[in-house]
Amino acid sequence: MKYLMYSIAVLFSYSIYSQDLNNYSLFINKIYDEALSNGKSYERLDYLSNQIGGRLSGSVNYERSVKWGKKELDLIGLDSIWLQPVMTPKWVRGAPEYAHIESTSGNTISVPVAALGGSISTPSIGISANVVEVKSFDELTSIGKDSITGKIVFFNRRMDPTLINTFQAYSGSVNQRTQGAAKAAKLGAVGVIVRSMTTTLDDYPHTGSMYYDGLALNERIPAAAISTNGAELLSSMLSLNPNIKFFLRQNSKNFPEVLSYNVIGQVVGSERADEIILVGAHLDSWDLGDGSHDDGAGVVQSMEVLRILKTLNYKPKRTIRIVLFANEENGLRGGKKYAELAKINKESHFFALESDAGGFTPRAFSFDTTESEFRNLKEYEGILKQYGIDNFVMEGSGADIGPLKDDKVILSGLRPDPQRYFDYHHAASDTFDKINKRELELGAAAMTALIYLIDNYKL
Amino acid sequence: MKYLMYSIAVLFSYSIYSQDLNNYSLFINKIYDEALSNGKSYERLDYLSNQIGGRLSGSVNYERSVKWGKKELDLIGLDSIWLQPVMTPKWVRGAPEYAHIESTSGNTISVPVAALGGSISTPSIGISANVVEVKSFDELTSIGKDSITGKIVFFNRRMDPTLINTFQAYSGSVNQRTQGAAKAAKLGAVGVIVRSMTTTLDDYPHTGSMYYDGLALNERIPAAAISTNGAELLSSMLSLNPNIKFFLRQNSKNFPEVLSYNVIGQVVGSERADEIILVGAHLDSWDLGDGSHDDGAGVVQSMEVLRILKTLNYKPKRTIRIVLFANEENGLRGGKKYAELAKINKESHFFALESDAGGFTPRAFSFDTTESEFRNLKEYEGILKQYGIDNFVMEGSGADIGPLKDDKVILSGLRPDPQRYFDYHHAASDTFDKINKRELELGAAAMTALIYLIDNYKL
Repeated sequence: MKYLMYSIAVLFSYSIYSQDLNNYSLFINKIYDEALSNGKSYERLDYLSNQIGGRLSGSVNYERSVKWGKKELDLIGLDSIWLQPVMTPKWVRGAPEYAHIESTSGNTISVPVAALGGSISTPSIGISANVVEVKSFDELTSIGKDSITGKIVFFNRRMDPTLINTFQAYSGSVNQRTQGAAKAAKLGAVGVIVRSMTTTLDDYPHTGSMYYDGLALNERIPAAAISTNGAELLSSMLSLNPNIKFFLRQNSKNFPEVLSYNVIGQVVGSERADEIILVGAHLDSWDLGDGSHDDGAGVVQSMEVLRILKTLNYKPKRTIRIVLFANEENGLRGGKKYAELAKINKESHFFALESDAGGFTPRAFSFDTTESEFRNLKEYEGILKQYGIDNFVMEGSGADIGPLKDDKVILSGLRPDPQRYFDYHHAASDTFDKINKRELELGAAAMTALIYLIDNYKL
Repeated sequence: MKYLMYSIAVLFSYSIYSQDLNNYSLFINKIYDEALSNGKSYERLDYLSNQIGGRLSGSVNYERSVKWGKKELDLIGLDSIWLQPVMTPKWVRGAPEYAHIESTSGNTISVPVAALGGSISTPSIGISANVVEVKSFDELTSIGKDSITGKIVFFNRRMDPTLINTFQAYSGSVNQRTQGAAKAAKLGAVGVIVRSMTTTLDDYPHTGSMYYDGLALNERIPAAAISTNGAELLSSMLSLNPNIKFFLRQNSKNFPEVLSYNVIGQVVGSERADEIILVGAHLDSWDLGDGSHDDGAGVVQSMEVLRILKTLNYKPKRTIRIVLFANEENGLRGGKKYAELAKINKESHFFALESDAGGFTPRAFSFDTTESEFRNLKEYEGILKQYGIDNFVMEGSGADIGPLKDDKVILSGLRPDPQRYFDYHHAASDTFDKINKRELELGAAAMTALIYLIDNYKL
């Protein structure tokens, strides 16, 4: 009898599976209808961006966004909501930066700059020095200490415009920003300016994190981003006259760490409460814009996942947890603390999805997992194609959920169209008017659909 | 011996084919590098949009864009360039429209309206009447002549927000705009206002063509688009008080047809000069915005196809022809004339590609051809996936190339991401600042790649 039943099961397995897929499809259709007819992501982001605004770690605005985030989760109505304490860096930009190129004595052209996050101030009277332009660390090394001492190093390698995936281009250039000051300081430079990490030519300095790589306080030098137009101008002026001087004044300061919070909420699963499905984004942003794309979009989309499932009366089988992470931009303390406590508390994460690539039309999901697991997940790819999700790819996920990585959890990232992201990234132009409502709500719908599929995966 | 050779050919066919694909891939990589490093679409569109602007058929601006188009083709350097005469309608909006809702006598709220293209004027003192709101022609018919006579009919069916493809949503609502006035006039209405065809809630009236369906001059009634916010307001006020009045004043006028031109250029093929591969877009636009997405983007992208191939020293095997069509928006005269003359001159069109869906990230190509031909073309799909072209689909192409349709030509359309298109479509908001350079140049690259593949197809 057992043998016979087994045969029948095999015989019927395809059609049962196909029936499951059909049911999933019907429910996902409801998810999209709800997101596109009654989606709340845009409205929520309007508040976060326009009523709170930029929310760098340690700022009053970050505290305000924690309160707002908790209140929004209360409004959705979850089984539990809590704040998870975490110490974060506090860096403050201070008075607006100023920089100019001095072509001949007394003839100056001002250029837009912004201190890099974590950078020390210049002396209050600023610094003025000759400039050494380099495109790479190899070039810096080959120029050598004698020619660099006393100078400002100008890192001017642009993001490769021929890469279709702009995130790849970013990866190929961003070490100038993160490590440039430390490398230049060791060779005697007095300051560093870095070409903004953007694919456009614009007048916005794009800030971002930098690290001094263990340099003592007195060895550190100030570092600033210069707009791409400013970088082009400086480079062309240097090619005409290598002896021009650059003046930089900034007023940034590192303060002692402050107590901050991850905002967390969850709906407890009805069948496998101990298996956590996490959906999240980072709540902090840089200070220059209002952080609409980075990462306000991910925050409101993550909230929307919970709202849509609740509105559709869906009872999760696993525990679905939203985490709004503190301090992604300049420390990743929120993500690290979350993973540390998850380990201590022996929490089991089945899946974690992050949205941190902007609120643009969603096009793919990335999965950081084993090849065999990925093959299983690929089975769901077809269901989402009609909604414009082209494919599932095996790649990295998101910075905040990265520390959760172990041999069990499946990490995943929403992949929106990447063409416009770096136009606004870390700049004063990352503002709510750059958000398209349909694109944003579509991202929330795609995330909800994936979380729903995962909740039903391997049951 | 013949038999043996045949066998060998079959044996080797796969690897030869695969080698071809490799060579195509290498060349397409060059196309993308050129488009993303040195693309000229954005610069060209800046001129067309900001120095010429809106260019409705019959306007001075349309004449200016013909001259500009010819000059740009001269600069690229083609084998021949010519203007193809075509008579086009001339409709002029006249003085700005004005409309208000009169809730009670003397209490008015103004709402944004724009005459639909082709509509007659109101009397110079405007019209004022009660309003009948309908969502469909069926509803209009069921209300009947007695209740409609003397009223303004308000067509208020919105575009379905749950359709992922916004063009489908447009198709599902646009008959209110094109045919609403004719249907309402036959039932005694004195005017028509139509909810703007857009997926957003905004304050822009979105114009577009309308036709009187053979109505005599004295039977025609004025028709205007109302912004979606205006439509929502009017609808909610009507639900409170069905007796409110609507006032509309517009000053539009139809003039006798004028002589106009399609702008055409070509590079003669080295092997099959008589097989024409057409790439094109429409040069005219509505008058409210500057027509950057509709269809300035397609115009400059089509030019870019020729420029890139020339820059890469590519010698086409078939004849590659660019056509910038006149009068797509309110008559399609350019497309019709072109097809008519092609037939008379016994020209053989192998392929025609149109870009007329906005300058957004390209995501697919549509093909209007036989199923067997489509299966062959699908072989090329994989080459473009790495550039973000998700798939080839079998669907309609573009309005201007539609009249070429016969049992031989393959018609094709560029399919950019459709989420933002109707935000700007036919409205004052369709302006150059809504264009993203990378997205635009990527579209040009995709088109160039396809034209290149087609040039080598079935040789």
